[in-house]
Amino acid sequence: MARIVIALGGNALGNTPAEQQQKIEAACPALVGLISQGHEIIISHGNGPQVGMINLAFDIASRQNEKVAAMPLQECTAMSQGYIGYHLQKGIAKELRLQNMPWQVATVVTQVVVDSNDPAFKNPTKPIGAFYDEATAKAMMAADPELYMAEDSGRGWRRFVPSPKPADIAESKSILNLLDNEYIVIACGGGGIPVTRDENGDLHGVSAVIDKDFASAKLAEAVGADYLFILTAVDHVCINFGTPQQAELKTMSSSEAETYISSGQFGAGSMLPKVEAAVSFVKSGKDRRAVIASLEKAPQAMRNESGTLITL
Amino acid sequence: MARIVIALGGNALGNTPAEQQQKIEAACPALVGLISQGHEIIISHGNGPQVGMINLAFDIASRQNEKVAAMPLQECTAMSQGYIGYHLQKGIAKELRLQNMPWQVATVVTQVVVDSNDPAFKNPTKPIGAFYDEATAKAMMAADPELYMAEDSGRGWRRFVPSPKPADIAESKSILNLLDNEYIVIACGGGGIPVTRDENGDLHGVSAVIDKDFASAKLAEAVGADYLFILTAVDHVCINFGTPQQAELKTMSSSEAETYISSGQFGAGSMLPKVEAAVSFVKSGKDRRAVIASLEKAPQAMRNESGTLITL
Repeated sequence: MARIVIALGGNALGNTPAEQQQKIEAACPALVGLISQGHEIIISHGNGPQVGMINLAFDIASRQNEKVAAMPLQECTAMSQGYIGYHLQKGIAKELRLQNMPWQVATVVTQVVVDSNDPAFKNPTKPIGAFYDEATAKAMMAADPELYMAEDSGRGWRRFVPSPKPADIAESKSILNLLDNEYIVIACGGGGIPVTRDENGDLHGVSAVIDKDFASAKLAEAVGADYLFILTAVDHVCINFGTPQQAELKTMSSSEAETYISSGQFGAGSMLPKVEAAVSFVKSGKDRRAVIASLEKAPQAMRNESGTLITL
Repeated sequence: MARIVIALGGNALGNTPAEQQQKIEAACPALVGLISQGHEIIISHGNGPQVGMINLAFDIASRQNEKVAAMPLQECTAMSQGYIGYHLQKGIAKELRLQNMPWQVATVVTQVVVDSNDPAFKNPTKPIGAFYDEATAKAMMAADPELYMAEDSGRGWRRFVPSPKPADIAESKSILNLLDNEYIVIACGGGGIPVTRDENGDLHGVSAVIDKDFASAKLAEAVGADYLFILTAVDHVCINFGTPQQAELKTMSSSEAETYISSGQFGAGSMLPKVEAAVSFVKSGKDRRAVIASLEKAPQAMRNESGTLITL
């Protein structure tokens, strides 16, 4: 029996409530399949499209109707955890029933602690929300000194927020507690609600987005997982991607992975953070393994029949 | 030592994220005060203004921007649980530290099961979201047969949704599990995400709002609580309210309460559901007591120095 943290991409969850529910139901057989192989699972998920939509809804509506408050990004992430967690727990409960498994499922609203001195706070890199013209964007920045806006890929001006590294999972004890009692726990949604910890130990929300793969690696460390599964749209990590020399990797040591990373083998917005998160987890302790695989083939990946296994 | 379910009003939580955080921090000493008296607490909360705001934001934005999906009410409630739970768990954790208490705090995303044959589904009574003119409202109803809209108190046309009675708390085992491990659990936010259970046992979201006092009474039953505390803006339940004969009640038996209810002593939108929820809890088992008191005086109410105690 292994303890497995599974990271699901937010892009795999669709763009509307109906789509999300349907895509989650389609994913649940693979997820619950790991349970029926005898393992314990913790599910984390991204929230890129979902928190973008929530943020955009408040952005538009709060300018037009005084009954809608401006909503900081960390509160939007908290909302996305409720929204996605609700669908996941409903979908998993149904699949548990179909597979006759006695497990329970619960969503834990999760804060993830970041370092207030993280250099990312000086360099906001994650685009969020609506596009504006230059004049509007500059007026918005003048009105709110905390807002950083910049031109995004020729499509207009947009807000950018920092993406600091996760340092600690505030709710790790709650997650362990449920896990020890035959629970599938849904946690760290959207990389977690980003908070800093002050000198007294109290938590304070910050306007940032934590990468869900890094947060999942930190969660996997915190709960003493044996495996980190990063589930995505492709079956394997590839090198020489898109060239005649393209090759699928069945396994990769952390030092091989680091060599590939430094030679620029992986795309910054796609495979790179997944491989980096996998390496950080396998290097965090003894006998820790990471798997990057497609969502549908998670049970096969657990039997080494699919995916890329990353070892120390 | 007693096990206490505490129901907080959504109106007590303010209208903006900053207000909410501040009001929650102000309430936490009284809540954690019950813990330091040696009791176990589960916190449920209303979400009237908050879910109204989330619903309104999606209502406005989804008509203007195709990237914002229309958001059903049950998903808005799930979002409000993440939003309010996040602030509550942060505020309570801080107060636990200040009072040197070793307890943990966690928010559980909670579905509450209602009966699909509940007569409330034939009679939508809860107004939700924005006001429209009659022509727009009628066009909206023609476009969506599930939408019921009507004139609301001379202020325009508005959507009304059913308010069915809670039948079961889907996550009661998760809540009990955490409670048994020295947790303050935040659950059943906004009366819970309303779901029906089909013949297989699977859950399906429904467009409705469950009264938070009734949901809290059902939660108190489900976790075997000794006390249901309904915390509000006034110190006591009164009879002959607003007349020269106005009298504060220190105690009230369930049969006295029922007599007052049938003689119309309590306002339908305010004290009536609280007294009804209190009576339903004290009648649900042996040695169950309910208290209706002001938020600030919860610890005094526990010592019988404030509030109205309702007994069998």
